[in-house]
Amino acid sequence: MPSYKAPIRDLQFVYHELLEADRTLTALPGFEETSPDLVDAILEEGAKLFEQQIQPLNQSGDRQGCSFRNGEVATPDGFREAYRAYTEGGWCSLAVDPELGGQGLPETISFMLEEMLTSANVSFSLYPGLTRGAISAISSHASDELKARYLPKMVEGVWSGTMCLTESQAGTDLGLVRTKAEPREDGSYGVTGTKIFITGGEQDLTENIIHLVLARLPNAPPGVRGISLFLVPKLLPDDHNEPAHRNGVNCGSIEQKMGIKGSSTCVINFDNAQGFLIGPENRGLACMFTMMNAERLAIGIQGLGLSEVAYQNAVAYARERLQSRAATGSAAPELSADPLMVHPDIRRMLLTARAYNEGARALAVWTAINIDLSHRHPDIGGRTQAEDLVALITPVIKAFFSDFGYETTTLCQQVLGGHGYIREWGMEQFVRDARIAQIYEGTNGVQALDLVRRKLFIHGGRLPRRFFQLLTEFAEQQRDNLPLQPYIRPFIEALNLLQELTEWLVQQGATDPNQLGAAATDYLRIFALTTFAWMWVRMVAVSQDKQAGGDERFYRAKIQTGRFFLGRLLPQIQGLNLAIRSGSELMMAMPEADF
Amino acid sequence: MPSYKAPIRDLQFVYHELLEADRTLTALPGFEETSPDLVDAILEEGAKLFEQQIQPLNQSGDRQGCSFRNGEVATPDGFREAYRAYTEGGWCSLAVDPELGGQGLPETISFMLEEMLTSANVSFSLYPGLTRGAISAISSHASDELKARYLPKMVEGVWSGTMCLTESQAGTDLGLVRTKAEPREDGSYGVTGTKIFITGGEQDLTENIIHLVLARLPNAPPGVRGISLFLVPKLLPDDHNEPAHRNGVNCGSIEQKMGIKGSSTCVINFDNAQGFLIGPENRGLACMFTMMNAERLAIGIQGLGLSEVAYQNAVAYARERLQSRAATGSAAPELSADPLMVHPDIRRMLLTARAYNEGARALAVWTAINIDLSHRHPDIGGRTQAEDLVALITPVIKAFFSDFGYETTTLCQQVLGGHGYIREWGMEQFVRDARIAQIYEGTNGVQALDLVRRKLFIHGGRLPRRFFQLLTEFAEQQRDNLPLQPYIRPFIEALNLLQELTEWLVQQGATDPNQLGAAATDYLRIFALTTFAWMWVRMVAVSQDKQAGGDERFYRAKIQTGRFFLGRLLPQIQGLNLAIRSGSELMMAMPEADF
Repeated sequence: MPSYKAPIRDLQFVYHELLEADRTLTALPGFEETSPDLVDAILEEGAKLFEQQIQPLNQSGDRQGCSFRNGEVATPDGFREAYRAYTEGGWCSLAVDPELGGQGLPETISFMLEEMLTSANVSFSLYPGLTRGAISAISSHASDELKARYLPKMVEGVWSGTMCLTESQAGTDLGLVRTKAEPREDGSYGVTGTKIFITGGEQDLTENIIHLVLARLPNAPPGVRGISLFLVPKLLPDDHNEPAHRNGVNCGSIEQKMGIKGSSTCVINFDNAQGFLIGPENRGLACMFTMMNAERLAIGIQGLGLSEVAYQNAVAYARERLQSRAATGSAAPELSADPLMVHPDIRRMLLTARAYNEGARALAVWTAINIDLSHRHPDIGGRTQAEDLVALITPVIKAFFSDFGYETTTLCQQVLGGHGYIREWGMEQFVRDARIAQIYEGTNGVQALDLVRRKLFIHGGRLPRRFFQLLTEFAEQQRDNLPLQPYIRPFIEALNLLQELTEWLVQQGATDPNQLGAAATDYLRIFALTTFAWMWVRMVAVSQDKQAGGDERFYRAKIQTGRFFLGRLLPQIQGLNLAIRSGSELMMAMPEADF
Repeated sequence: MPSYKAPIRDLQFVYHELLEADRTLTALPGFEETSPDLVDAILEEGAKLFEQQIQPLNQSGDRQGCSFRNGEVATPDGFREAYRAYTEGGWCSLAVDPELGGQGLPETISFMLEEMLTSANVSFSLYPGLTRGAISAISSHASDELKARYLPKMVEGVWSGTMCLTESQAGTDLGLVRTKAEPREDGSYGVTGTKIFITGGEQDLTENIIHLVLARLPNAPPGVRGISLFLVPKLLPDDHNEPAHRNGVNCGSIEQKMGIKGSSTCVINFDNAQGFLIGPENRGLACMFTMMNAERLAIGIQGLGLSEVAYQNAVAYARERLQSRAATGSAAPELSADPLMVHPDIRRMLLTARAYNEGARALAVWTAINIDLSHRHPDIGGRTQAEDLVALITPVIKAFFSDFGYETTTLCQQVLGGHGYIREWGMEQFVRDARIAQIYEGTNGVQALDLVRRKLFIHGGRLPRRFFQLLTEFAEQQRDNLPLQPYIRPFIEALNLLQELTEWLVQQGATDPNQLGAAATDYLRIFALTTFAWMWVRMVAVSQDKQAGGDERFYRAKIQTGRFFLGRLLPQIQGLNLAIRSGSELMMAMPEADF
């Protein structure tokens, strides 16, 4: 059975040393008490629960899956108890405003815990994860009455939240949503329609489920400008806020899926269910995006979490499994064969996972700090700057983290050879679970279009301009740092390539919109790899500085992994750049009938 | 439910037009009767059976899987009937020598049918596939007595064959095999040991199962030079060659796997089972390689087969699914949205699969023709030349076809969005089934080592020299073919890069063997992509010539797909080349304890 140990030391490195989050975050109003000791204690406490109680349910949850009978869903054995421990420990509400019953900690801490939780059990993580997203949408856009009625129990975790967007004819294209909302005399709405692919749409963990539903008002304009957002509880609360009356909400079935089998994926039927408008009429998609942006980042984190746990188990196997001899002569002549770890190709696979994981962890925490800054920076300029960076990097994290997560869980599975393909060893589950992150919450193709068609252009191109400036400034600051030059050189080369490509793309897109679509996926990958290179050079710089002061092995490994990233993985951008420059015509020239 | 239509037209193009196999093969002794009409009739007859009877069992076979009770394995419903139809149709023995009861057709035809069969149902294909491999090992190395006793029923398909190599401590490293063979007075051997991961080790399709088992004789030298090959039947035949007596062979359990669930993967216990030596003592591995080389090619074909069927279903979905509008303005304003096919990123995914598939199909048939030449060319020089080419390309086909098969089944799954992740649609099964081909029959890392550590060096480097000469000659022949120049230029650039890299690698490997291991996987991919480029330029050349003579749409699509391959996919080699040149030190410098 696979095991998992939370990478506390590396999270501490990223938080305390690399990004100096202590200084940045404690300067923000409300976070003054977030001492380094408190952060470390939370990480360790969370790790204990996830490692000991939630991770052991990952494999059994996959085997058993969710079951459906008479409209009710049973989650796998142990999920109920684990969910109780999770909510009672206060893990649902770390970053929620204390006024709403939360603990008012920085989002940054919540992000770090999310990585650990997804390593331990992605299926489990989705239940509280969606509730967290629903809380943020409700608290940002709902009326005070709705907030007072629904948020406290959601923050406590005794009620959960979902997002009901997709319908059978409306996936990526939410303009095609058909679910209807009819105004009632009491100011509420009768919601009618069928939603599919609803994660946690029905389950046996919470006493109530609060659905956030996209639907159309009568006479709403067609397309995305005619969609409104509704809060539709499974059970309508009575005057004491106890879930009392069954609403017109039913689970029709659950899906049989490739992975995340411990997470229920439901068809939810709304039959004149009582719902309550959130935000202005016909502005539902904008309100939903509060939740979707948070979810997109969380889903990127799933890629990292799965890659980390897969890496750990592949390393353990590569250390113990004896097979063949090192090419340079036997490394362990006293044994029947050498451990797999002597083989360069095995190390290539492991280091690929490691280099992506550590780069991703740094970038995730950097992004989370910017989320906190965007909420609490004292200046509007500081808030906008942080908001811009988060908006730009969100599709990159969602798509690239989930892409590399699938690639590296596959590589780590490969390290185990035939045993990687057998269910018993658990590696193939990581691959199956990782696969969904490339698809849900907007496919990675849609993320790439969000980056190249929207984020590059809004506010007159301000987002990439700010971002590139940040990277350029860093490079300039390090100009006299001699030991860093071998690392900074490939980074600057990548940055130049990315900037030139961005200019080319923006120009091309002006005359041929298909150039943007044709370039999108590969462009996002170049963007991500360059951003990782930035993080890696920063990590190497810190490690070079600190290496002499103790914990030498940690910093040495960090520098070594950085070298691997820059030398072995970053060059991908050369081929991708050439591929993009071959242009959209290669894709569009073929008549549809010829496929 | 997914559907499948055999790509007969493209197979005909490759066989008749591109490679002119009719001329080459009918010139070989024994193949004089293989007329174009006969070939086409066989392709069409095979397609009918596979499409109509075997493909419909693919998804149900995955859901039901194999079951195990009291040492017996039940294959999924319908497999027995389909297997009977398959054997009665003579599909087991197409390329087997008529003296052994086969039909004596070229291997090339068998290869083309193998692609179709794996598209239809990979799990099913493994049962007859392994029998075919066992037949070739027995007919090449066993005594006349063993051949006479076992081959006729295997050729008929009423007995099957397996390969029993792996033990729990011996996977890649067969030198660690512990199964023992004790000589008996009657000249046979008592075989004792446990083999794992035995495909078709037990099943309910055939009346007997003939295991080919690697084991050690008493006092055999340690390592791979002390392994012998034994034929061990499940049931010992009586004097009338009826399977009469139970041998000491038992199935201990079957594995729960990620995919190929319709194929049984067995633990087989040999308990003083009567076995018969095949080939010389202690030369078992060399004899087994006759079978393994054939299997490696067959497994590459699985990657192609799955990629083809995934492509077909993704195209069908992309044509029908309406979602969002084309970036250049609505393509179908009368519909609620445009078909997915208008989006460049969707086309990128589909064309990636298509370009790999068609390149692979051409290369597979080219390789199969060389197998036939290696068996039957009248001159020893011609046979050796063909043998060299097959030996060189075998690891490339096994590894690269299975790698791209996993990548493109994943891309085709992505085209379906959320529906791709749901079992019902069948796309996720293609991915799970494709994954094993990268692992079994020697992991792709082992294939890459076979290429760089062995095939580049044997016979003083003759294999790559011959191969590069062939490609160079082609480029020179086409020097005056003006319309071909835009295609041939990127091919020549790739060929130069590959040749320079090969020289560099051979040099580096002389002083640091780890350079070979560190480069292996990426080098194999560059080798494969360059070889595909060669095939693509040849296909474009033929299509340019024939375009005016009818079937214009077919040739136009071929040229268009070739452009996509050369412009969009081939540039990968640039990044891979840089990655390799960063050297082995990046992988080896990290102490094992630091991982």
